Amino acid sequence: MTAYAVPVVNSRDDVLRTALTILRQYGLADLSMRRVATELDVRPSALYWHFTNKQALLTAMADTVLSGVLPRSDRMRWDRQLERLALDLRAALLAVTDGAELVSISQASGLSSAAIGDHFVAAARRGGLSARDATAVRTAVWQLVIGLTIEEQTRAQMAGIGALPPSDREFDREFADGLALILDGARHRLPAS
Amino acid sequence: MTAYAVPVVNSRDDVLRTALTILRQYGLADLSMRRVATELDVRPSALYWHFTNKQALLTAMADTVLSGVLPRSDRMRWDRQLERLALDLRAALLAVTDGAELVSISQASGLSSAAIGDHFVAAARRGGLSARDATAVRTAVWQLVIGLTIEEQTRAQMAGIGALPPSDREFDREFADGLALILDGARHRLPAS
Repeated sequence: MTAYAVPVVNSRDDVLRTALTILRQYGLADLSMRRVATELDVRPSALYWHFTNKQALLTAMADTVLSGVLPRSDRMRWDRQLERLALDLRAALLAVTDGAELVSISQASGLSSAAIGDHFVAAARRGGLSARDATAVRTAVWQLVIGLTIEEQTRAQMAGIGALPPSDREFDREFADGLALILDGARHRLPAS
Repeated sequence: MTAYAVPVVNSRDDVLRTALTILRQYGLADLSMRRVATELDVRPSALYWHFTNKQALLTAMADTVLSGVLPRSDRMRWDRQLERLALDLRAALLAVTDGAELVSISQASGLSSAAIGDHFVAAARRGGLSARDATAVRTAVWQLVIGLTIEEQTRAQMAGIGALPPSDREFDREFADGLALILDGARHRLPAS
């Protein structure tokens, strides 16, 4: 079958799985609707049955990447819960080529149905923070994860094509220290008890 | 003169200025060495006299974008100084299309000579924080600025091409609240006096 045959309408999961395979192998810059269609041996127009545009596909991909990041037991202390969520989020992003950039784009679109941001807020609220302070915690933690991991994955990509040597930065330590500082700020916001 | 004439070796500033003009008008995705060369009416090879590769050009562009972000008077309180630097950094990124992504790439390369990160550390040290805590402050503030501003500029770009409506998020407020939380964490790290 060529790309000019009657398009087979693949399942939404087929499209998503193929897009994620392309991402893992080649990165975000090489991901296009056309490329996904070619891999599936259908016309690009066949994809729009499932995803109205590339943005919708990227968001679904990001939500898939984030699907395993879930709150742990509520018996865990709220600040430990926040730390755990942040570490799990970072691990999920690092597991996929350009994972952090993908999720940043998805967040920018406002279309994501991933609930991690809500989990951050819920944990901070459970600790006793006001709604506004809990949102501030989410913002600071989220952008620490996204910003630092984008840098780390960009550098890995530069090293991968031989443009630069691998970085000697200790990203995990930078992350842990930044996160600990933010959590100190969060604990500092607790109403005096 | 065509692109096939004997290449005129433009000054380094010409190349940099042209690249920044392309960035401002079209964004990072449309910036290539070829595009810059075409604008300057020279062969791409003429650019490598000044910049060994695109990465070097991007870093020089980022350093130019950041060149106006400088510490204020040391008579300013250290935490106020940090806040001011963070606000100035964010404003500098917002002033250029894809400014945050450009600076993220430049930071990933490790080639940047911009000293803003050092200014963050210096301000925190002046306040009395340990070297490690001061570095943690830099990490958390830097990634808040970069991560959030990447999201904001990505959304602006989506809105610009009509893919999505403008965001109703209050990015400035998200930023201010996240920053205040981090600075609370920083003050919390001061040795008890």
